[in-house]
Amino acid sequence: MVPDRLARQLDFILEIDKAKQILRRNRITGDRRRENDAEHAWHMSVMAMLLAEYAPAGIDLTRVLEMILIHDLVEIDAGDAYIYDAEARRRQQPLEQAAAERIFPLLPADQARLVRALWEEFEARETPEARFAGALDRLHPLLLNFHTEGQAWRENGTRKSQVLDRNASIADGSPELWTYARQLIEQAVERGYLDE
Amino acid sequence: MVPDRLARQLDFILEIDKAKQILRRNRITGDRRRENDAEHAWHMSVMAMLLAEYAPAGIDLTRVLEMILIHDLVEIDAGDAYIYDAEARRRQQPLEQAAAERIFPLLPADQARLVRALWEEFEARETPEARFAGALDRLHPLLLNFHTEGQAWRENGTRKSQVLDRNASIADGSPELWTYARQLIEQAVERGYLDE
Repeated sequence: MVPDRLARQLDFILEIDKAKQILRRNRITGDRRRENDAEHAWHMSVMAMLLAEYAPAGIDLTRVLEMILIHDLVEIDAGDAYIYDAEARRRQQPLEQAAAERIFPLLPADQARLVRALWEEFEARETPEARFAGALDRLHPLLLNFHTEGQAWRENGTRKSQVLDRNASIADGSPELWTYARQLIEQAVERGYLDE
Repeated sequence: MVPDRLARQLDFILEIDKAKQILRRNRITGDRRRENDAEHAWHMSVMAMLLAEYAPAGIDLTRVLEMILIHDLVEIDAGDAYIYDAEARRRQQPLEQAAAERIFPLLPADQARLVRALWEEFEARETPEARFAGALDRLHPLLLNFHTEGQAWRENGTRKSQVLDRNASIADGSPELWTYARQLIEQAVERGYLDE
């Protein structure tokens, strides 16, 4: 007999296996296939560990990691909306809310509340932890897009002004990382990875 | 100009993108393809967050998460050795040491030492944090193997005695999770997913 609490935790853990099949627009550097949500969350988590010195002082790294690990779970139902497609992102919002209503309550009630609160904190971008996690959520695909010669940008007709506009919020989480990101964007234009 | 320290951190972050192409033996539940190391580390990290109540009291969750996030990076060079193939695991050890010598020093020296120490702590299985992380490293493929009808076990001719033997160390990290794992193994045999 498996205790009810553990059974619910394991049901949730199995459910989120589906995040490995939610494809993003950006490519991985090796064989250039599209990245999935699980890979993105892992890579962002390692970035949080190693780049924490560029986050606001006194940040709670555990909460940053927890937020990153669960931030895209709602895409299991809602799918991934391309960051530079404003219309798709608008359509996405009610789908993500419905996904949160279905997926988080698979957990025992106390953990469902905790994970939902982490997701809402991430989405609201108000705490220093959420701003830093949000900055990494932007910087990560930027890095991979640059190092795959802008393939996702070219495939989706993305322009420099969109990339500058949508990524400017990196500055709220980390001014140093935004300085770096702006250089990367300029270099992407120079190399022809991104249209002016 | 990118500061040298940040440039090294980013070189490492790009290097580990390769973990997304290191395939494990176990399958994911959806389309039954083989899982990769990045996905495994993400899924294990979420498990650590949600199952921490079954870990030894007073455990440092941040260190558990950091250990999990980096525990398989040496496989970028060394490849994945099937857990039930003792000979492959023996051949693996010097390859993993060489990988640690190449990959971790891409980072600034202080972070290279930190990540190497985390990896060595994980491998040594002596601290409560490493034992709990190690328990999840065993439980995670067990779960996926069970919920893919034992495909990886059947493909590799794995027997129940091997699974019991190699997973008994789950008890060192979490007696409750080992109780659960033993039930899962029995059920796998009953259902014909695993040979007696």
